[in-house]
Amino acid sequence: MTKILIIGGVAGGASAAARARRLSEDAEIIMFERGHYVSFANCGLPYHIGGDIKDKSKLLLQTPESFLARFNVDVRVMNEVTHINRQDKTVTVKNLLDGSEYREAYDFLLLSPGAGPIVPPIPGLDNPLTHSLRNIPDMERILNTIEMNKPEHATVVGGGFIGLEMMEAFHQLGIKTTLVEMADQVMTPVDREMAGFAHAEIREKGVDLKLGVALESVEYLPSEHIADVNSGEDAAHQHIEGELKLSLNSGETLTTDILIMAIGVRPEIKLAQQAGLQIGELGGICTNEMMQTSDPAIYAVGDAVEAKDFVTNAPSLVPLAGPANRQGRMAADNMFGRNEAYQGTQGTAICKIFDIAVASTGKNEKQLKRDGIKYEKVYVHTASHASYYPGAEIVSFKMLFDPNTGKILGAQAVGKDGIDKRIDVMAVAQRAGMTVEQLQHLELTYAPPYGSAKDVINQAAFVASNLMKGDAKAIHYHEISHLTDEQLLLDVRNPGELEAMGSLAGAINIPVDQLRQRINELPKDKEIIIYCQVGLRGNVAYRQLVNNGYKARNLLGGFRTYQFAQA
Amino acid sequence: MTKILIIGGVAGGASAAARARRLSEDAEIIMFERGHYVSFANCGLPYHIGGDIKDKSKLLLQTPESFLARFNVDVRVMNEVTHINRQDKTVTVKNLLDGSEYREAYDFLLLSPGAGPIVPPIPGLDNPLTHSLRNIPDMERILNTIEMNKPEHATVVGGGFIGLEMMEAFHQLGIKTTLVEMADQVMTPVDREMAGFAHAEIREKGVDLKLGVALESVEYLPSEHIADVNSGEDAAHQHIEGELKLSLNSGETLTTDILIMAIGVRPEIKLAQQAGLQIGELGGICTNEMMQTSDPAIYAVGDAVEAKDFVTNAPSLVPLAGPANRQGRMAADNMFGRNEAYQGTQGTAICKIFDIAVASTGKNEKQLKRDGIKYEKVYVHTASHASYYPGAEIVSFKMLFDPNTGKILGAQAVGKDGIDKRIDVMAVAQRAGMTVEQLQHLELTYAPPYGSAKDVINQAAFVASNLMKGDAKAIHYHEISHLTDEQLLLDVRNPGELEAMGSLAGAINIPVDQLRQRINELPKDKEIIIYCQVGLRGNVAYRQLVNNGYKARNLLGGFRTYQFAQA
Ligand SMILES: Cc1cc2nc3c(=O)[nH]c(=O)nc-3n(C[C@H](O)[C@H](O)[C@H](O)COP(=O)(O)OP(=O)(O)OC[C@H]3O[C@@H](n4cnc5c(N)ncnc54)[C@H](O)[C@@H]3O)c2cc1C
Ligand SMILES: Cc1cc2nc3c(=O)[nH]c(=O)nc-3n(C[C@H](O)[C@H](O)[C@H](O)COP(=O)(O)OP(=O)(O)OC[C@H]3O[C@@H](n4cnc5c(N)ncnc54)[C@H](O)[C@@H]3O)c2cc1C
Ligand SMILES: CC(C)(COP(=O)(O)OP(=O)(O)OC[C@H]1O[C@@H](n2cnc3c(N)ncnc32)[C@H](O)[C@@H]1OP(=O)(O)O)[C@@H](O)C(=O)NCCC(=O)NCCS
Ligand SMILES: CC(C)(COP(=O)(O)OP(=O)(O)OC[C@H]1O[C@@H](n2cnc3c(N)ncnc32)[C@H](O)[C@@H]1OP(=O)(O)O)[C@@H](O)C(=O)NCCC(=O)NCCS
Repeated sequence: MTKILIIGGVAGGASAAARARRLSEDAEIIMFERGHYVSFANCGLPYHIGGDIKDKSKLLLQTPESFLARFNVDVRVMNEVTHINRQDKTVTVKNLLDGSEYREAYDFLLLSPGAGPIVPPIPGLDNPLTHSLRNIPDMERILNTIEMNKPEHATVVGGGFIGLEMMEAFHQLGIKTTLVEMADQVMTPVDREMAGFAHAEIREKGVDLKLGVALESVEYLPSEHIADVNSGEDAAHQHIEGELKLSLNSGETLTTDILIMAIGVRPEIKLAQQAGLQIGELGGICTNEMMQTSDPAIYAVGDAVEAKDFVTNAPSLVPLAGPANRQGRMAADNMFGRNEAYQGTQGTAICKIFDIAVASTGKNEKQLKRDGIKYEKVYVHTASHASYYPGAEIVSFKMLFDPNTGKILGAQAVGKDGIDKRIDVMAVAQRAGMTVEQLQHLELTYAPPYGSAKDVINQAAFVASNLMKGDAKAIHYHEISHLTDEQLLLDVRNPGELEAMGSLAGAINIPVDQLRQRINELPKDKEIIIYCQVGLRGNVAYRQLVNNGYKARNLLGGFRTYQFAQA
Repeated sequence: MTKILIIGGVAGGASAAARARRLSEDAEIIMFERGHYVSFANCGLPYHIGGDIKDKSKLLLQTPESFLARFNVDVRVMNEVTHINRQDKTVTVKNLLDGSEYREAYDFLLLSPGAGPIVPPIPGLDNPLTHSLRNIPDMERILNTIEMNKPEHATVVGGGFIGLEMMEAFHQLGIKTTLVEMADQVMTPVDREMAGFAHAEIREKGVDLKLGVALESVEYLPSEHIADVNSGEDAAHQHIEGELKLSLNSGETLTTDILIMAIGVRPEIKLAQQAGLQIGELGGICTNEMMQTSDPAIYAVGDAVEAKDFVTNAPSLVPLAGPANRQGRMAADNMFGRNEAYQGTQGTAICKIFDIAVASTGKNEKQLKRDGIKYEKVYVHTASHASYYPGAEIVSFKMLFDPNTGKILGAQAVGKDGIDKRIDVMAVAQRAGMTVEQLQHLELTYAPPYGSAKDVINQAAFVASNLMKGDAKAIHYHEISHLTDEQLLLDVRNPGELEAMGSLAGAINIPVDQLRQRINELPKDKEIIIYCQVGLRGNVAYRQLVNNGYKARNLLGGFRTYQFAQA
């Protein structure tokens, strides 16, 4: 009889436990969780705070009781594994309810301890109004502070998805919110110019967005009252009033009523480290493709491990639920002698930011540059479904590909509708090893409420294939500020659009539909830098000019990409 | 200077014209269209009738004037090509405005004449209250009848997507509607049991759905009035009152105020046939992969051609806009000496039916059976996004795959949310040649508003892989009525669900979470046919039983698939 111990009872751990039982009725399976809850929906926590998910119980997908009944798994909540004793294949467990300690033996051990919020060494952070959000008790502390203190102003530090979701939650509760982010953009999985759409959305909703600004210190200014939540005092008194004075590296100070630190997470590797398991350079537990650590009896999955990047094969840290769930399932398989190999992480991610979604898969441009990988890129902005059917919204889409082979390196999308779909399509295409040439042929669902006869992805593939074949020559938004005297800016939109949307300084304006008549107005000895709103008419003009013997380039993504890159 | 003539000015033709101009400034391009309009959104016509698209002008994507201005294409509307003279490479054209005829020479000719509505030989169809819908004049005739006659009852014959969209349009206008379909299901691209969801939706909305019923004859009963639309009489009088008496092959008769015939379309091949071009067995124009007909100077695209089926390589007729648009672009490429090969049609399709979408890609089970292709199938019913986040809806999903290689043969999905996304994912995966094994690893976007850590597709892939590995043994809904004495039906849902949803006759009920304690109630010598609501708990129970030495099978798709198969 195989005995399996699992450390961590949420995404990776619970998935492994359930799968292990489905594989074997007679294995002994014990799942240790140091917290109160197992199988909870971490990802739902911000939405319960913001009020979208009304009922807290909806966040509990399984309980120790249901786990026992359905899977005959011995779930031990409030039991923390404090030591792995590899020599005798046991773990030391501390029962947090009564402080007792005991040992439990294993044939196989699974580590799925997750990742904890990074707490930076900022003076003053340790105060009752500062929170991070990882689990249900964290959520309850935040809810408690909100309920008791009725904060008028909240500050979120960190523009990753947890920070953004908390920002939205506060906004939804009518609390004025400041978002402080040290980088020049939120949502690092996408590139700066794509994040611009998010910045515009965040500001439009009235959130005070501070980019390129870091929190330097926190001062806690308590007011008259009051006992701590944990004091045991009557609930009505359990609030800690006061406010926080935040000093920012911009020199500003900010007074706020509640502070959320969400600058990222770090793998929980204490146990693994103590046990001498191999730890990678990024600070995660190393495993092979079978999710086995350097000790073959010990598997590790989820946020705590370094997984192979799908594109580069380099180790990467991607703390997301999909990989954790699937790795957990695989680890269970492999404990029972199967041969399931994890096939790399693309890092497919999505975040709702008020009315828009921001999503990506694969590598972004920053990473490709850093890793010295050659790439080309295209932008399109196309309707989420037939533009004549109500409800169509612009999908702003960026695709990165290998300029020689056409292989997909990554994709990013932002907009109000159909963003998840486009990135899912790209995630599949990338995983299948498709090229931009092949993407031209994709046959996606089309009826007016759902798509277009030529979908966003087909269009992006056309643009990319045109580049590869030499049918198009691109200029990118970041090159516009470096034009030389040998180049001439040509705006091919209609005059009304220039007025309504703005235009690039120094551009001359000939609407695309007048270009044939007015082509003589353009010099043949200069390179004509064409742009329109999104690039499509620019392409029409480009083809006309080059086929008439002009030198030209088309601004990919048009004025729209240029504009939002500054947002 | 290359001279290109194009017959047909909508999806395939207009796309080819635009692309041809982008490839060459000096080609002469003439596009003939016998109708009043070019570049119109056929697919939007039903939605203008139903009122979703308010503004008719939105349906006109380009006009002859805009085509000239932007693409320098000579667009000749109301000019019908009546003959192709291959020997001298000319076409004969009739100007429908003045009746004159002329010839025009070509270097390359493109046929994109589309497909026309099938008019069956039913007595009495030729009356002023019976319409089909292909173009803008058809739409205007229908709108006119509605406006003038204020019909209280409409009948649509044909449950394909045009029929369904017209049904919805009438319903939306408050007109009581009957839908008559000869087959036992609507939406033939999906299989009968998946169409059941559509049937339920249609009936729930109050439409009188008659399946397995054919129209046999029509009697036109005019009342007092009135001049025909085309009579030239004052608009206020232009209505033809009266009603239609429909005789159905069920013996029923039906009185209706307007009748739409939408039983399918047939390629327009008259010109091609006269010109001696090769026509295929299905009645479409034959082309090679380059979209060249049997005459190398003549290309053909769109609804009029037979394209290679992606799965079987057999010729197929798929009258959809995506293929037409892409083939048009390719034909233009190839006229200019490029080498673009059309890579087969999957037949990816989607239709909105009131609040649900029905979609599919690849082959369905009926086709696979007919073609003698070996397949296995799975069903899952899973939330469109995290079920704890508001707005999650069930995605009912069917996947067909090769039982030996795991290659994807087709997929179908029905539901209120996220249907297009799932079928797009499958369309890409199929085109990329992926297997169900590989689908397990898909890394799709997940945040609570958009997906699940294990998406519908991952779940379907798990189920399929379990079958392939022998970890699961399936029984299908259609086998339930043939159980033998050696089999025992076990319902593992909770008693409350049986009451609320119904159950299968003769089943014993042991909730999955009690199964371990009560396993002795089950006989070891019989095969236990397990079912739950969707199959997931059935799988848990299945694993428990087989790992305890029982023989068992799990009903894939559970009670839900079984139930809707009858709808
Ligand atoms: C607020 C929030 C929102 C999120 N939103 C998304 C999202 O939208 N999409 C997405 O893909 N991902 C999201 N995630 C990330 C996702 O939840 C994680 O990637 C996933 O839960 C990782 O699973 P895991 O099993 O590795 O770790 P966890 O789910 O964190 O589980 C680890 C568990 O191990 C326990 N543990 C640790 N050490 C011990 C020990 N020594 N003894 C006993 N128990 C121990 C911990 O208490 C913890 O409960 C979100 C996370 C948070 C916090
Ligand atoms: C009501 C309706 C809804 C639809 N909805 C969808 C949908 O949701 N999704 C989808 O993918 N597809 C849909 N379609 C199908 C889609 O419109 C067609 O697949 C597509 O338009 C085919 O393009 P085509 O160029 O082959 O033919 P068409 O677009 O039909 O164009 C052919 C043109 O050629 C002209 N022509 C024919 N013969 C001659 C001649 N001898 N001389 C001059 N002109 C000639 C015709 O007048 C016609 O305008 C719908 C079609 C209709 C009618
Ligand atoms: C709840 C939890 C224990 C589920 O574990 P699980 O039972 O493995 O997962 P599911 O309920 O999704 O079921 C998947 C199983 O059902 C099967 N299945 C799914 N639909 C099915 C259907 N219609 N018919 C038959 N089988 C089906 C799958 O094949 C899979 O079984 P397998 O692994 O044996 O192949 C675990 O995912 C968990 O704790 N999640 C919460 C934590 C979390 O994920 N947090 C981060 C996201 S918020
Ligand atoms: C309107 C119509 C003439 C458009 O033809 P088109 O110009 O080829 O198509 P689009 O407007 O989609 O533009 C596509 C072109 O723009 C390019 N493009 C798209 N977005 C771009 C961007 N952001 N930057 C640069 N180029 C872009 C594509 O590469 C493609 O050019 P290419 O073929 O030279 O590579 C034709 O599709 C039509 O008549 N449609 C209506 C009929 C119809 O389709 N009915 C059925 C569906 S309702």
